[in-house]
Amino acid sequence: MTDGAGNLKHLSLGEVHDLAFNCLVANGCDDANAQAVADNMTAAERDGSESHGLFRLPGYVASLQSGKADGKANPQAEDVAPGVVRVDARNGFAPLAFEAGRKPLVAKAKAQGIAVLGIVRTFHFAALWPEVEALAREGLVAFACTSTMPFAAPAGGSKALFGTDPVAFAWPRPDGHPVVVDMATTAMARGEVMLAAREGHDVPLGVGLDGDGQPTRDPKAILEDGVMLPFGGYKGSAISMMVELFAGALIGEVFSFQAGEADNRDGGPSRGGELILAIDPARMGGDGDGIALGEALFEKMLDAGAAPGAVRLPGDRRYGNREKTPRDGVAIPGALYDRILALVGGPA
Amino acid sequence: MTDGAGNLKHLSLGEVHDLAFNCLVANGCDDANAQAVADNMTAAERDGSESHGLFRLPGYVASLQSGKADGKANPQAEDVAPGVVRVDARNGFAPLAFEAGRKPLVAKAKAQGIAVLGIVRTFHFAALWPEVEALAREGLVAFACTSTMPFAAPAGGSKALFGTDPVAFAWPRPDGHPVVVDMATTAMARGEVMLAAREGHDVPLGVGLDGDGQPTRDPKAILEDGVMLPFGGYKGSAISMMVELFAGALIGEVFSFQAGEADNRDGGPSRGGELILAIDPARMGGDGDGIALGEALFEKMLDAGAAPGAVRLPGDRRYGNREKTPRDGVAIPGALYDRILALVGGPA
Repeated sequence: MTDGAGNLKHLSLGEVHDLAFNCLVANGCDDANAQAVADNMTAAERDGSESHGLFRLPGYVASLQSGKADGKANPQAEDVAPGVVRVDARNGFAPLAFEAGRKPLVAKAKAQGIAVLGIVRTFHFAALWPEVEALAREGLVAFACTSTMPFAAPAGGSKALFGTDPVAFAWPRPDGHPVVVDMATTAMARGEVMLAAREGHDVPLGVGLDGDGQPTRDPKAILEDGVMLPFGGYKGSAISMMVELFAGALIGEVFSFQAGEADNRDGGPSRGGELILAIDPARMGGDGDGIALGEALFEKMLDAGAAPGAVRLPGDRRYGNREKTPRDGVAIPGALYDRILALVGGPA
Repeated sequence: MTDGAGNLKHLSLGEVHDLAFNCLVANGCDDANAQAVADNMTAAERDGSESHGLFRLPGYVASLQSGKADGKANPQAEDVAPGVVRVDARNGFAPLAFEAGRKPLVAKAKAQGIAVLGIVRTFHFAALWPEVEALAREGLVAFACTSTMPFAAPAGGSKALFGTDPVAFAWPRPDGHPVVVDMATTAMARGEVMLAAREGHDVPLGVGLDGDGQPTRDPKAILEDGVMLPFGGYKGSAISMMVELFAGALIGEVFSFQAGEADNRDGGPSRGGELILAIDPARMGGDGDGIALGEALFEKMLDAGAAPGAVRLPGDRRYGNREKTPRDGVAIPGALYDRILALVGGPA
């Protein structure tokens, strides 16, 4: 079923979307949920974020098959305060839950100047940048974060407590794509550590500890009985803690360690929360031209390297891929493609 | 004027406050500004944050003497949107500007669920934790950031662009002190690099680059013609960029590099902006007990080390000092004390 060249399957973005949509529907999603997840996954493939593309589909399906996630969930947005929207995802996946909260969040941010969206009872298994990019395209400055599973020890510790706890940030630009940050607050994304283990590569010191709590370069030791570490020592650890509190306690949701305790280990995402902030730069007072002012910083950043290209703006690599993949399509591992085809056959 | 023991001058906290207040008034502050800055500086000495205590006083005075900062500024809060307060500090120091914005910010956060305070045309030369701790003591979750001067290169670059760009975060606790983070987003605070240079110590790799853009452990090479670096590589660099945008363009203020261009190099602070977010956990929906939920995370953090005390909660070291200094007083370098006494004599 796959071509011979490096055992890769070439797909157009339309084929990626169809594959994801059909597979999700075959495994219990209604059309609305399947569409939202497939859109998100296709956007990831389009941007070269392979770790959040079709690679995630078996995990989504596992959580549907085990009954942990509800593929027919109808997320409900609630107006809980003038600056606050809350979405009860009703055990559904995050993409549709975000869609339910997006319009009220944008309306509130534009009316109040700043607003926050808390999504609870959701399964977030996707990249974070789609949320903040969507808000930036409406002219808003956006920040998002979500907790995950207990993979990382706080700085100074050796017991898993924090998740990979990604944060995302987006800033609109007057012409062109928003500047978009999306990063795990662990030193390395978990998928990268898994990839290094699979391929037999070392990882840098600082990525994790072994089972004795000692620094190691061995990704298997980190994954098997060790822990990952936050990026940047105690400072990154403080950012992870902030994410846990924002996406957890602040909105009445669980922390990563509690998500881990409750999870059924089906290989899919764990239940948790997501917090999204949106700020309208036009409502901050002053001359209302805050977005245009950002350009001076970006220009200086691009000029701060010894050579052109040494410093890139966050998101630029993805935008580069976005130019190419609608024309060239994408290539996914043949084994993944075969696995997905089997899953499209329906639950085992 | 100083005792012999290690050339330290011992002062009670009351003496610290009097010294700061009198020195500021002698150099052109009105009582309100002198009081706000002296309160802030005394709180820093009380908490053992020496780098933000009396050590800063000569810099404040320099900016008053050069006419850059206005010691009689009367900061004005403006209600610019339901969720937004803007304070024009009118070229005054940040502590009084924050006081002008604090009550409206708290009122808006409690009414809207979330609110933001932008302070413009200010000189921020203090620790950031006093702002977020004050908000947490009113039951709010708080985040603050400010830009500084162009000291650090973005990841991949070698030209100074970002400031030390500190961020602060506070989370209230049902019993006891809030958990409070306050950290530069550079790998090391500038004061620490200066201290290492003065004492002839190396700094870790990753703190900065030399004049050729090469990694160095020599703090003098970093300070003289090199650059500092953000903490945690490109991830910390993205956080610095976010701070620049939040405390700069978003509120119509300058970036660190523009502050550096405009500064008169009097040794005092540069003009810039500060952004403060406040969120009311009681307005986030759910069962309204978000703050209490945080305790489970803090308990796990304290238990995540191989030994008790291996992991501490952010702010704990300062709170420990806060227990002792009201009784024991503080000790400052004799040379600093003598310098301040000379400044109390008035402008040269």
